[in-house]
Amino acid sequence: MAKINQDYCRLRGSYLFSDIARKVREYESKGPALPIIRLGIGDVTRPIAPSIINALHSAVDEMGSAATFKGYAPDLGYDFLRKAIVDNDFKARGCDIEEDEIFVSDGAKSDSGNIQELFSTDNVVAVCDPVYPVYVDSNVMAGRIKNFDEDLDRWKDLVYMPCTAENGFVAEIPKEHVDIIYLCYPNNPTGTVIKKDDLQKWVDHANKTGAVIIYDAAYEAYIAEDDIPHSIYECEGAKTCAIEIHSFSKNAGFTGLRLGYTVVPKELEREGVSLNALWRRRHGTKYNGAPYIVQKAGEAVYSEAGKKELRAQIDYYMNNAEYIRSNLEEAGYEVYGGKNSPYVWLKTPNHLSSWEFFDKLLYGISVVGTPGVGFGPHGEGYFRLTAFGDRDKTVEAVDRIKSMTF
Amino acid sequence: MAKINQDYCRLRGSYLFSDIARKVREYESKGPALPIIRLGIGDVTRPIAPSIINALHSAVDEMGSAATFKGYAPDLGYDFLRKAIVDNDFKARGCDIEEDEIFVSDGAKSDSGNIQELFSTDNVVAVCDPVYPVYVDSNVMAGRIKNFDEDLDRWKDLVYMPCTAENGFVAEIPKEHVDIIYLCYPNNPTGTVIKKDDLQKWVDHANKTGAVIIYDAAYEAYIAEDDIPHSIYECEGAKTCAIEIHSFSKNAGFTGLRLGYTVVPKELEREGVSLNALWRRRHGTKYNGAPYIVQKAGEAVYSEAGKKELRAQIDYYMNNAEYIRSNLEEAGYEVYGGKNSPYVWLKTPNHLSSWEFFDKLLYGISVVGTPGVGFGPHGEGYFRLTAFGDRDKTVEAVDRIKSMTF
Repeated sequence: MAKINQDYCRLRGSYLFSDIARKVREYESKGPALPIIRLGIGDVTRPIAPSIINALHSAVDEMGSAATFKGYAPDLGYDFLRKAIVDNDFKARGCDIEEDEIFVSDGAKSDSGNIQELFSTDNVVAVCDPVYPVYVDSNVMAGRIKNFDEDLDRWKDLVYMPCTAENGFVAEIPKEHVDIIYLCYPNNPTGTVIKKDDLQKWVDHANKTGAVIIYDAAYEAYIAEDDIPHSIYECEGAKTCAIEIHSFSKNAGFTGLRLGYTVVPKELEREGVSLNALWRRRHGTKYNGAPYIVQKAGEAVYSEAGKKELRAQIDYYMNNAEYIRSNLEEAGYEVYGGKNSPYVWLKTPNHLSSWEFFDKLLYGISVVGTPGVGFGPHGEGYFRLTAFGDRDKTVEAVDRIKSMTF
Repeated sequence: MAKINQDYCRLRGSYLFSDIARKVREYESKGPALPIIRLGIGDVTRPIAPSIINALHSAVDEMGSAATFKGYAPDLGYDFLRKAIVDNDFKARGCDIEEDEIFVSDGAKSDSGNIQELFSTDNVVAVCDPVYPVYVDSNVMAGRIKNFDEDLDRWKDLVYMPCTAENGFVAEIPKEHVDIIYLCYPNNPTGTVIKKDDLQKWVDHANKTGAVIIYDAAYEAYIAEDDIPHSIYECEGAKTCAIEIHSFSKNAGFTGLRLGYTVVPKELEREGVSLNALWRRRHGTKYNGAPYIVQKAGEAVYSEAGKKELRAQIDYYMNNAEYIRSNLEEAGYEVYGGKNSPYVWLKTPNHLSSWEFFDKLLYGISVVGTPGVGFGPHGEGYFRLTAFGDRDKTVEAVDRIKSMTF
């Protein structure tokens, strides 16, 4: 008799965004009075930029001719893309990262879910609270986190690093022993950032204790200020303690194209084993490369024309963020993020719970956001809005929220 | 101190096809006298069919316009593709499979590597010998297979089902207790097939014992004869014991586009838990959908024009298979497969080991094949050639092999 993986059965509820999608679908099917505006899931809305579209068409044509057809991609990604990544995302920022430390994938979600496989199940994991649910769920599914405290509504064997208004939503280095630390800056969901000096402290701590930092840099393209690092490898010594995950979803609108990459430095070893070699083995065994046409689209992201078009696209979203932030603040909301980040994190009015506020927005004014508590216990009483919407709809959504009284 | 996953360290050598690629790269860099012909890795060479190229261009255009842009795909895949799959691959064959039992993915390799996650680590796994290495390696990486016998060069805690000339390279139901059974027909690497009556015996056995069959149907499009099942769901009772994995790589040349799907029937439960629900949860948590443009390409595979073009493509490869098979047989080789399958499996001449034969072909005549022993102990003394090459190069490779004396 085949026995199932009981670790899966310990997962709490279903995946947050699947939950929200179901609620919205049910509401929509009843024909709401106002058209629904989605500022919930961090999905982009601007079309793929023209120079990337051109690259896609051209790559599709290559696939249609025997002379230029491409079959299986190289395990780690095509050289042309890994070179563009190294040159633009690292060398240009003074980070000494090499091409064989870049692993191209189908996106940051897969990588951030799969990366924990490289570690044994007896490591102690630390996450920010609130946090992107994939970090926690993937560790539960692996059996690394097992014991849930129903009373406190939190995992007993997971180290939570509270991010609160008091600490400016920037985690503090935990006092207890931890082995694997997930950090994400600019932060999802709170929209906050970390300064280079502060990130350096994490790197120093990890090097001192032997912990490994999984650094999620999916939102780095939104950084507008100077002293905020785009990569953890801007910090000294990060190559011996950090893995970094990147996405093309938010800087180039690839949520529906699927492309990302992970950096595993060759100097990163634990127990005498190279994590670069382990991740290479995983890639070679359980993955078969991102589509050639999508990797060509990724290359176009780094072209001069692509960069210019994407700068405009990011500005578009950042104008939304600024509009949401400043207008809700003006309306009396306590608002965080929205600078150097596409996420606005707000305190719910009148001590409403996150889901109560979600319901009021959905059923009252047809606006979809994300309940903060879905990201962790310290997200309770908060709510995330994204700047990835259409400009007119974003303005309309903010107007609707402002029209509500609580 | 972060501790690494020691299960990864138990893997034998590197991934077979990465090994071969490295050997070939080194040989090529030395400037061989004859141009290299690759009949090793099962990668296709014909360009993507015209109606699929049209679908790709059209989907790319959609991505370039705000009105038709697509962001995150639905967790399980777009309805249009799942409907096409159900109608063509199942309903048309009398298999009662529904759309919410289809999980679209980036390919059969990922799915066949990841599917083991649904099961606890104390299940006993059975594989054919020889076998596609991903089934074994992914179970080693998960800690389900731990003990290697260096003397016998085989895993102690894995049940091998020998496929030999004596049993026509069709596995026999193991006498010992097993929980998870991997089957692949048409078979990779031996190119053999299983008749419906024989597959029914496996299904009955699994239903009797509670085992789960992971059925890899990646090569079903090559089936030309009547009494050979395209899907395990053609057998009665398969929905309570079998998961089936499909690929678009070999029927439509998508090795570089990446698309596949897995069927997990809703009736399939173990220990009171729905495997459909578990796989849905994995998809939702660690995966973010196949690219929209690739799913549109998948839809075109099932269009009338697409089917006609792909029939011609498969015929092209099957003519290669027939050429390899009949010519090597004529030249005195002991040859299997190559009918209902794109793989030809041959006994090495003069008792050469698989790798000795590989080296002779590579260094002697610049032909790349796959050493049978790379697929398991009972593959020793055998060699796999694929029919996925260009016609002229395939003929040239066969001529070169025939020119060799051993």
